[in-house]
Amino acid sequence: MSATVKLDFIKVTKPRPLVAHVQLARFWKEYVAVFDNMRAWYGDVRAVVLSSSLPKVFCAGIDFEDLLDLKNSPSSDPARTAVALRRHVLSFQAAISSPERCPVPVIAAIHGVAYGLAVDIIAGCDIRYAASDTTFSIKEVDVGLAPDIGTLARLRHISSNASLGAELAYTARTFSAEEAFRLGVVSRVVEGGMDEVVRESLALAEEVARKSPIAVTGTKHLLMHARDHSVGENLEYTATWNAAMLQTEDILKAVRAARSKGREEVSFE
Amino acid sequence: MSATVKLDFIKVTKPRPLVAHVQLARFWKEYVAVFDNMRAWYGDVRAVVLSSSLPKVFCAGIDFEDLLDLKNSPSSDPARTAVALRRHVLSFQAAISSPERCPVPVIAAIHGVAYGLAVDIIAGCDIRYAASDTTFSIKEVDVGLAPDIGTLARLRHISSNASLGAELAYTARTFSAEEAFRLGVVSRVVEGGMDEVVRESLALAEEVARKSPIAVTGTKHLLMHARDHSVGENLEYTATWNAAMLQTEDILKAVRAARSKGREEVSFE
Amino acid sequence: MSATVKLDFIKVTKPRPLVAHVQLARFWKEYVAVFDNMRAWYGDVRAVVLSSSLPKVFCAGIDFEDLLDLKNSPSSDPARTAVALRRHVLSFQAAISSPERCPVPVIAAIHGVAYGLAVDIIAGCDIRYAASDTTFSIKEVDVGLAPDIGTLARLRHISSNASLGAELAYTARTFSAEEAFRLGVVSRVVEGGMDEVVRESLALAEEVARKSPIAVTGTKHLLMHARDHSVGENLEYTATWNAAMLQTEDILKAVRAARSKGREEVSFE
Amino acid sequence: MSATVKLDFIKVTKPRPLVAHVQLARFWKEYVAVFDNMRAWYGDVRAVVLSSSLPKVFCAGIDFEDLLDLKNSPSSDPARTAVALRRHVLSFQAAISSPERCPVPVIAAIHGVAYGLAVDIIAGCDIRYAASDTTFSIKEVDVGLAPDIGTLARLRHISSNASLGAELAYTARTFSAEEAFRLGVVSRVVEGGMDEVVRESLALAEEVARKSPIAVTGTKHLLMHARDHSVGENLEYTATWNAAMLQTEDILKAVRAARSKGREEVSFE
Amino acid sequence: MSATVKLDFIKVTKPRPLVAHVQLARFWKEYVAVFDNMRAWYGDVRAVVLSSSLPKVFCAGIDFEDLLDLKNSPSSDPARTAVALRRHVLSFQAAISSPERCPVPVIAAIHGVAYGLAVDIIAGCDIRYAASDTTFSIKEVDVGLAPDIGTLARLRHISSNASLGAELAYTARTFSAEEAFRLGVVSRVVEGGMDEVVRESLALAEEVARKSPIAVTGTKHLLMHARDHSVGENLEYTATWNAAMLQTEDILKAVRAARSKGREEVSFE
Amino acid sequence: MSATVKLDFIKVTKPRPLVAHVQLARFWKEYVAVFDNMRAWYGDVRAVVLSSSLPKVFCAGIDFEDLLDLKNSPSSDPARTAVALRRHVLSFQAAISSPERCPVPVIAAIHGVAYGLAVDIIAGCDIRYAASDTTFSIKEVDVGLAPDIGTLARLRHISSNASLGAELAYTARTFSAEEAFRLGVVSRVVEGGMDEVVRESLALAEEVARKSPIAVTGTKHLLMHARDHSVGENLEYTATWNAAMLQTEDILKAVRAARSKGREEVSFE
Repeated sequence: MSATVKLDFIKVTKPRPLVAHVQLARFWKEYVAVFDNMRAWYGDVRAVVLSSSLPKVFCAGIDFEDLLDLKNSPSSDPARTAVALRRHVLSFQAAISSPERCPVPVIAAIHGVAYGLAVDIIAGCDIRYAASDTTFSIKEVDVGLAPDIGTLARLRHISSNASLGAELAYTARTFSAEEAFRLGVVSRVVEGGMDEVVRESLALAEEVARKSPIAVTGTKHLLMHARDHSVGENLEYTATWNAAMLQTEDILKAVRAARSKGREEVSFE
Repeated sequence: MSATVKLDFIKVTKPRPLVAHVQLARFWKEYVAVFDNMRAWYGDVRAVVLSSSLPKVFCAGIDFEDLLDLKNSPSSDPARTAVALRRHVLSFQAAISSPERCPVPVIAAIHGVAYGLAVDIIAGCDIRYAASDTTFSIKEVDVGLAPDIGTLARLRHISSNASLGAELAYTARTFSAEEAFRLGVVSRVVEGGMDEVVRESLALAEEVARKSPIAVTGTKHLLMHARDHSVGENLEYTATWNAAMLQTEDILKAVRAARSKGREEVSFE
Repeated sequence: MSATVKLDFIKVTKPRPLVAHVQLARFWKEYVAVFDNMRAWYGDVRAVVLSSSLPKVFCAGIDFEDLLDLKNSPSSDPARTAVALRRHVLSFQAAISSPERCPVPVIAAIHGVAYGLAVDIIAGCDIRYAASDTTFSIKEVDVGLAPDIGTLARLRHISSNASLGAELAYTARTFSAEEAFRLGVVSRVVEGGMDEVVRESLALAEEVARKSPIAVTGTKHLLMHARDHSVGENLEYTATWNAAMLQTEDILKAVRAARSKGREEVSFE
Repeated sequence: MSATVKLDFIKVTKPRPLVAHVQLARFWKEYVAVFDNMRAWYGDVRAVVLSSSLPKVFCAGIDFEDLLDLKNSPSSDPARTAVALRRHVLSFQAAISSPERCPVPVIAAIHGVAYGLAVDIIAGCDIRYAASDTTFSIKEVDVGLAPDIGTLARLRHISSNASLGAELAYTARTFSAEEAFRLGVVSRVVEGGMDEVVRESLALAEEVARKSPIAVTGTKHLLMHARDHSVGENLEYTATWNAAMLQTEDILKAVRAARSKGREEVSFE
Repeated sequence: MSATVKLDFIKVTKPRPLVAHVQLARFWKEYVAVFDNMRAWYGDVRAVVLSSSLPKVFCAGIDFEDLLDLKNSPSSDPARTAVALRRHVLSFQAAISSPERCPVPVIAAIHGVAYGLAVDIIAGCDIRYAASDTTFSIKEVDVGLAPDIGTLARLRHISSNASLGAELAYTARTFSAEEAFRLGVVSRVVEGGMDEVVRESLALAEEVARKSPIAVTGTKHLLMHARDHSVGENLEYTATWNAAMLQTEDILKAVRAARSKGREEVSFE
Repeated sequence: MSATVKLDFIKVTKPRPLVAHVQLARFWKEYVAVFDNMRAWYGDVRAVVLSSSLPKVFCAGIDFEDLLDLKNSPSSDPARTAVALRRHVLSFQAAISSPERCPVPVIAAIHGVAYGLAVDIIAGCDIRYAASDTTFSIKEVDVGLAPDIGTLARLRHISSNASLGAELAYTARTFSAEEAFRLGVVSRVVEGGMDEVVRESLALAEEVARKSPIAVTGTKHLLMHARDHSVGENLEYTATWNAAMLQTEDILKAVRAARSKGREEVSFE
């Protein structure tokens, strides 16, 4: 039951039925491909856990060499350089946003060092659990740039204190899992490190994976839409979405299961 | 001073001057009518408290029979069925959003079981107080659907931890009044049950009811507008709104009262 | 190193390199000018602290006389009066929003009485620190009007409990620094009063001022943009912004400094 | 086959299968009810023609008495008067917009005098045919107000020369059917008067009525959506809409008919 | 009755009551000041005509020296140069958009050479009349840049053929007054040159100036708002705007004048 | 100088320097790839002409078999079918929108039969030329569906008479090149058929290809942005875009060429 696909610096397994576990080592070009092909490559996946495979580091931020490569412009014309850099940033953003395009929930299981790029990555996931040993930092200003591949775009959506969020982005100071929880960035602090937070994340993923996939994917799709639209716009969109989705047979199955109060097992295909 | 109007499953009284108390029993078609006709039917109302009248249950969610009725489509054509379902969802949404259209603040006094539809309902109110005996659940995924009549549309506005909000929507797990408070869903946890939370809600309603109605209705209108627009858009709209509202005589009255530091009573018509 | 410019009721000093300290006494027409000309008038400023200079009062709200002046309309025609009032509100809003237009972070150091207009002012700043002796109130409904120059427009962005925010706006009740922190309005409560909160704010400002100004101004600009746009819109805008900004020499300097792990000092021009 | 329902100043008949003909006499409170209940009251309607029943006048504009009634304010307080006027304008707008909410295309058959309110009315229809005897005027500035119930909101969508549109709105000068056609306001000028334009409009309505109602209602719904959204927003919405609508049996029927090249008759239920 | 104010390269006269005539010679820094202070500096102005004062040239485009000045960057750092250039473009845009902020209609009377900057200028006016001797060109691509101060932003609003508009912007080819009229850019072609088009524009301005200023300014304000918002947004905004404006005494005056059918003169203050 | 790449049903040549000619035969899966890889696959391309290679047919619409395939759903559950159909529509839309993502202008050279899908295709191009032998039809309602892959989304942007556009979409009636020109859909009618329209389109493409590529790509990018945003939004975005682009060396070259009045040749790399 545990298929494993190894790409260069990324490993995907299915440790539980319907759940995929994506593990990163260093940074990795295959990230976008893994998420954009989740169902095609890994079969019937209903929830995903994203973690690191390095015991002390979730992600330490962008590599300095990669950053300095940006300075090796293909052109001496600042306009042509800008066109190339813009394309580069857009494609990097598209990779980091790929968990949002994935039709099932993605849970980030965070631990250890989570600096710079790490915050961009987890901001693009649906749910964030942090081990108590996690140290966060919105590191980008310390290397002379604004966090441009997801952190600033999503910060107001994944935190609850705009003043504190701004302070963290302007100073790059570190903050703990506990402070991240109070700030609304993570929904749970798991005592321990990588192993503990992965275990709890997989348990959550398994719980989600047992629900109706039509209900879960609709919930994700409509939460994303609601984030970026007014209430009125979202309500109309939701009605159009559910015009098809309410025709699902899953409702009959789910109601029957709910009425049985746990005596009957239900499984959704 | 206490007019009572009884509709099928809904009771509206005016237990205090200028305050209406709407009590639900089971689900109820008259909800939208009560809120859309608040001033026409119940006279000079300045604030509303919405509660249940069942000692143990605020609202246990949509009735299974109603849900299964959705499957009895008027047509075998999925497109025609979709047209009908879309209309149904839109009209259900319009009912649940009616407290927002009501020109005065609506305070939800929540207690006991508050599952599924209950969360849609309270998300459409201005203020939420919960009794300490409340148990919440965003129940919809457990019956095979995405919460489509208000919860997902408003969740980001009435909670402060996107990760936790998503987790609650994907798992349908229950959460307490205390957790709801930490999550920013309710602004106060009242020790006790239905009676206690209603009493505190009525006290709050009475306080609001004594303020200038021009100031209060403007505050509600502009808060709603701000929720769905950018800061710049809202500021321009606000200037246009207040171009008329600053001409009110209430300002003179209110300033006189404020200067008297409580010695002079002021009342607004 | 400490330049001082005194305007009528406002004083600007540079108590530390690259940091400006703006102090208010009473309300003051020069506010907008100070912020819109920050760099032109005060030289190389990288961060600003805004405080009061009155020991017990940050700002006690709009003057009653100013408010009553609104009633002395230049015309007996309500439409012509509305045109004039609308212009007045827009220009007042533009003043209160000027810290947002200022290209460097503005830290509000709040203490004592912070009523009505005070909340509009701090809502327009990037970061908010409060002394533990602060008492807040969204006072406007008590003088018969809706808070129309910034508080309602920004409330959902600078607080984390919509129900509590609405309650505070409808009732005008006071709340402490501690409650403001729990509500997400301020990012830190500093034990003490004016002196203590100003000292901590200046320390924070100095820390920010040492970072790359291209990185800091970009972070501010993109945070503002993200607040008012969808994630997708902001990501595209960010790519266009950074197409030029990633060409900065500051990245080389900053990377060198980061690699030196504190042994090498870096300074940005 | 020709059911007739007479309301006060409005007459609805079904002169052809699936086509309703709405005729106005004077202005009329029932307008919104007729369109909002088109299918419930008049059965299987697939297209609507809206015309006047007065030989020389389509609509001569708002009645002066109705306009002056606006001045009989229920309150001497300008703010309370504004609240009441705002509600009045919103409800008038909602009536004039009711053809847009009607799920089938509405064709305005215009002739004779078409002043002020007439332009608001036809701007809310899907298709506009004008008799060659029509005289148009955006009359409102001549009675001291801006056209606030639909003309200004839709002018940019139903005309192709912003400069000319502005000129017509600022001067209230009359313009002919021919100029309206060149301006893009009407799609056809029918030689003659009321009878001729109604005849051609009914012929067009009948043609539309024979098409698949799922295709036609979808086209209307998506055209409305496209008018008010960006291309990207509309494409995503369209995909969600058609996820259900492409499941219709009408496609099979329509393809069969199309392949028969007119030899086979097809009819849609 | 003909006040004249001469600024460096701009002349403002009042050749008719309530009408201001702004004449340009070369390009001119005072443009924004003239429009932003129209009422304060020139008294009761109800409509404005903007023309050139050079017999053969409306505006021949940006000066090459000004353009090359852009290359004399204050900094060798491309990021700092970008910050400065961005500020420069924003302030140039704000000048060109000043006729839109002016509360009364501005009529562009165009003749002769109208290249590059000329199109940005006229796109920011409410109404465009062109002499038959006018030659237009969206000239910018010929000097290596995209038209960034108004032409591209407004092109879709002031033309009716997106394909032709794009063609003109990509090729910089010239087009005549007649083609501009067919394209919907101008609302009238006046036979002749500068004198003829100014005469007709002044006649139009005088006609507009006799209407109720509340009605005219509202019409302009709402047309601008409608251009940038959806129909639904604009209708709600309009209702809020007119809540105050319908209280004007001008309606009584205007209705009386309308009823007199021209026998009674009406004048608005 | 004339590279040719043949894909299954699509042929790309470079008949002139810097110009690519894309020719379609039947419908073709490679469309999206050709446009998304234009520069990578075909080298330095500055403008593209898109035409058919069939002498009588530009595109006759979607194949009936492809359409009926939609009915062979992978699932009997209408919700799962909807999820699959939605994905299908989105990917079809993304293909048809690929000319918009291509960084250089795409000119549609249209002739003969241009039905259904043909209109979706040309609506996604920047410029449209039609041979005088062209017959257009928005054919979709005749096969039971709403045109969902681009026509409805872009119709208001590429036509100037909303009433006529709606009529054409509701009736599927054919219209000529001449009517398409009057409707603003095409910018030029070329006497003749495929050969003539292709020749004129290539000449236009060559003219565009000689301009500064920074100016042309910026013009396209900003026109697209302006189409989907308000004037204010677009102006700010434009300033940010041009902050980098105004640093180009092309301006110096272009100004020198412009000053030489054609005596000096300029070429841009």
